[in-house]
Amino acid sequence: MLKLYYAADTCSLATHIVLEEAGADYSTVRIDFATSQQRSPDYLAVNPKARVPALVTDRGILTETPAMLVFVAQSFPAARLAPVDDAFAFAEVQAFNSYLCSTLHVAHAHRMRGHRWADDEAAIAAMQRKVPQSVGACYELIERDLLKGPWVMGEHYTICDPYLFTLAQWLEQDGIDPARIPRVVDHRRRVSERAAAGKAIARELA
Amino acid sequence: MLKLYYAADTCSLATHIVLEEAGADYSTVRIDFATSQQRSPDYLAVNPKARVPALVTDRGILTETPAMLVFVAQSFPAARLAPVDDAFAFAEVQAFNSYLCSTLHVAHAHRMRGHRWADDEAAIAAMQRKVPQSVGACYELIERDLLKGPWVMGEHYTICDPYLFTLAQWLEQDGIDPARIPRVVDHRRRVSERAAAGKAIARELA
Repeated sequence: MLKLYYAADTCSLATHIVLEEAGADYSTVRIDFATSQQRSPDYLAVNPKARVPALVTDRGILTETPAMLVFVAQSFPAARLAPVDDAFAFAEVQAFNSYLCSTLHVAHAHRMRGHRWADDEAAIAAMQRKVPQSVGACYELIERDLLKGPWVMGEHYTICDPYLFTLAQWLEQDGIDPARIPRVVDHRRRVSERAAAGKAIARELA
Repeated sequence: MLKLYYAADTCSLATHIVLEEAGADYSTVRIDFATSQQRSPDYLAVNPKARVPALVTDRGILTETPAMLVFVAQSFPAARLAPVDDAFAFAEVQAFNSYLCSTLHVAHAHRMRGHRWADDEAAIAAMQRKVPQSVGACYELIERDLLKGPWVMGEHYTICDPYLFTLAQWLEQDGIDPARIPRVVDHRRRVSERAAAGKAIARELA
């Protein structure tokens, strides 16, 4: 059985939702960032990166959201969550998720995790000030060029959808005016109405 | 035929090497960052993100290195560059490449591209000062936990190898002491000795 290590209000929600969408048999373990549990020896033995998510499988432990999303999609092909047998269509899915992890999520992280990239407080404050612009530019690109509609990849719901939904939880806190990105906000609402998102969120809030 | 848009001394080298490893029929177009060609209208029509690499295929244009590497591997299965039919082994490949794009490459980018995340010069200088530490921590994790040896994934050379090799070109400039990461440096040398790396680098330097 799969076991997901997650923390509340983090990108691990994306994998959590996809496990629900896939109908997977899985359990969850909550990691408490407030007490820095991600840096505890027990958790570092699971994931030496001291991050969530991590997914325990019968062959070993996986990390990194884009990899885990594809793993779940590929392990539960009946759910049709990624076109893994069509190299081009699959690459489009992967490109979108790669943009989320390496550009959008990174831009967002400069609001709360600036200490990763600078030590002095003035620099960290300067990073925070730019988040509305840097994150906003990512959402404008998604709104204009990347989100095909109704789902990210068009007619088919894929692993891209819960991942975008998860990051889009934070856009107001990042200082983005939702009115500038109506298609992203409408997409977020439609993912929130799916049973899988509801179940994953309810479990994380419980 | 595939067409790769690349720029010298960027992560596009990874895809360039993988195209060589795969024996692909492809052409290249050099984008000149010195004249900001990546922001020209012609290039923005190829890739609205104003970044390299981009890969023109007969079905459309792909971006994002992790996606492109898998696309090439999947399109040329005889080269056996990624275990796409083994969900767990493939996820390990993907997790490594995702770490490179979203953590290592991002840490590195704070040396030359700090303006992405802050506007004031003092903050950009503070980011630059932390690069040896933040990039160094990534390489120590790779050295200790991720690089299985002799190749990243063990006995088989995969798309992870030219990607790590490409980013490792910059480690001295990032202020990393190569003596601290002997396995990474040895890996870099062994990739550099492969014909594919030699051909791709020679073309980019020509």
